[in-house]
Amino acid sequence: MNSKIIGTGCFIPSVVTCNDSFSNHKFLDATGSVIAQPNDIIIEKFKAITGIVERRYAKPNVSTSDLAFYAAEKAIADADINQETLDYIIVAHNFGDVKSGSIQSDMVPSLASRVKNSLGIKNPKCVAYDILFGCPGWIQGVIQAEAFIKAGIAKRCLVIGAETLSRVVDVHDRDSMIYSDGAGATVIEATEEEQKGIIAHDAVTYANEEAYFLYFGKSYNAELPDSTKYIKMYGRKIYEFACTHVPAAMQSCLDKSGITIDQLKKIFIHQANEKMDEAIIKRFYRLYHKEVPAGIMPMNIHQLGNSSVATIPTLLDMVKKGQIEDQNIEIGDYIMFASVGAGMNVNAIVYRV
Amino acid sequence: MNSKIIGTGCFIPSVVTCNDSFSNHKFLDATGSVIAQPNDIIIEKFKAITGIVERRYAKPNVSTSDLAFYAAEKAIADADINQETLDYIIVAHNFGDVKSGSIQSDMVPSLASRVKNSLGIKNPKCVAYDILFGCPGWIQGVIQAEAFIKAGIAKRCLVIGAETLSRVVDVHDRDSMIYSDGAGATVIEATEEEQKGIIAHDAVTYANEEAYFLYFGKSYNAELPDSTKYIKMYGRKIYEFACTHVPAAMQSCLDKSGITIDQLKKIFIHQANEKMDEAIIKRFYRLYHKEVPAGIMPMNIHQLGNSSVATIPTLLDMVKKGQIEDQNIEIGDYIMFASVGAGMNVNAIVYRV
Repeated sequence: MNSKIIGTGCFIPSVVTCNDSFSNHKFLDATGSVIAQPNDIIIEKFKAITGIVERRYAKPNVSTSDLAFYAAEKAIADADINQETLDYIIVAHNFGDVKSGSIQSDMVPSLASRVKNSLGIKNPKCVAYDILFGCPGWIQGVIQAEAFIKAGIAKRCLVIGAETLSRVVDVHDRDSMIYSDGAGATVIEATEEEQKGIIAHDAVTYANEEAYFLYFGKSYNAELPDSTKYIKMYGRKIYEFACTHVPAAMQSCLDKSGITIDQLKKIFIHQANEKMDEAIIKRFYRLYHKEVPAGIMPMNIHQLGNSSVATIPTLLDMVKKGQIEDQNIEIGDYIMFASVGAGMNVNAIVYRV
Repeated sequence: MNSKIIGTGCFIPSVVTCNDSFSNHKFLDATGSVIAQPNDIIIEKFKAITGIVERRYAKPNVSTSDLAFYAAEKAIADADINQETLDYIIVAHNFGDVKSGSIQSDMVPSLASRVKNSLGIKNPKCVAYDILFGCPGWIQGVIQAEAFIKAGIAKRCLVIGAETLSRVVDVHDRDSMIYSDGAGATVIEATEEEQKGIIAHDAVTYANEEAYFLYFGKSYNAELPDSTKYIKMYGRKIYEFACTHVPAAMQSCLDKSGITIDQLKKIFIHQANEKMDEAIIKRFYRLYHKEVPAGIMPMNIHQLGNSSVATIPTLLDMVKKGQIEDQNIEIGDYIMFASVGAGMNVNAIVYRV
């Protein structure tokens, strides 16, 4: 029994926030000192490294679970299924619903229950739960859906990644420019077809000295209350971690799959940072003594930023629907998903369209 | 391939909070009006319904993930395994780490990563993630562990339920007396033994009008800021929901298992409210035209209150270790786990010791 994706959908929030909207931010370093460079230089360097030109934020009256619901509706329509036939709704996120202007995370009921409620699904056998696994949460949700299908307890699962990172950023931290809001969803279904859908997967958690490379910490502005926390990261450490461990997980997954690196048509990598993603792919190909093929890695980070769990399902949906220039996938193509994030977690899937 | 529990552990926080510590609380109703009855009458009625005499709170310097770690250490010792052989660490909770005196939930990194970090597990193939599924989260984590074992992606999983509800209660709400802190953990392992371990399981999510029976809402005290939310419930609606849907899920699970109701030796039910638990069990037996057997339902709610996801693994550990008067389980016994909570989720497992 294999598991294949029969529908995709995404929701791209409507508020476009350009880099120049950060021009008047007071950026501080980790010690609380004002960064000497003028903001236009900071922003130019930021763009050169991350590739991000603009990012999307959710409207104030919309929460993460709303974004998840909008993406879910589209994926269900794309799959052309009766939503009452879903066995699972799995929502990956890391901060719950954070109301605009609030600092509290609301996860009771789970975001998956909220999505089920919004969809109006009546079937109680459609089990709704949330998974917290850092940015790789959507891939991990897909791996879990596949396990349920293999174990015989599900035939059809809706797996969503949704986040509103704009509500947990420290405006005094340059890294705040990276984060965005979004949601992507997929419907996964059992299939009897051989060598179709998920071919192999791999996941690892590094939780020794790496555990707190991404964390919830106080503002760089010491005047803000210590008790309020924001998403924070040790960027340099994450970069080094990712460049070692993501290629290794991709290799492990590819080798399990039994296909060769030359058979891979596309790699959908977590849209974390363009330079980092390029370095990861380069090291991955170097493990096989190969050059990176042109166009292997579709990207949407330039316009959408890093929306955590939402990046890969959003990118997949956009490529499938011809919304990324010069990028497409065709039936029979082998593709790969790979992600890295808080935990520190890394995972990958080899998938045949 | 079956899945059996090879170790259990729990951590009972040290701060004992007796009912009379609520004597000076200003209890309000949902409209914000002061409840006319004196507190000693309110407390007496509360005790008569819920059975709760005292409950445990974590010390201020301890978080949910610390409780989870303490319980995990004990379960690993009880299982007598090398912790590096764990394939998964699954932590069920609903509020993340809430520091004493704070209102923010901290889940980055996931609580499972924090536990893995505290345990000092080095093996990256031990995948750590959190599940949010209301009070039935620990049972659902066990069901997921079983699915991973059946799917061939895990052999040994650590499943923990941990919560510090004392940090999310509205002190003006009588229901605040129900909630407590705690953690329970189990090690689940693949076994080739037939008719051993998990025999059957069932889970349902009711998310139509029921979705927000348990929710995160503002204080009954209108003078407190609207933006700060607390755990809230529609007790009467939950009671009615539970008395219908928990017996039905238990029946569905028992019927799947192929054993008869007379073969059941113990039922470990979520310690939500003594009267409700008794009503659920009564209705379950009534579905089979039977009387409730004496001693079928071990209880620890009197001393421990309702610690959400932690109640069942804590109760199981205490019964296994002879810490509940006149209660024990023996090899070969058929037992059942059943829970209900936010989502609204209901689940059950038939298990052979």
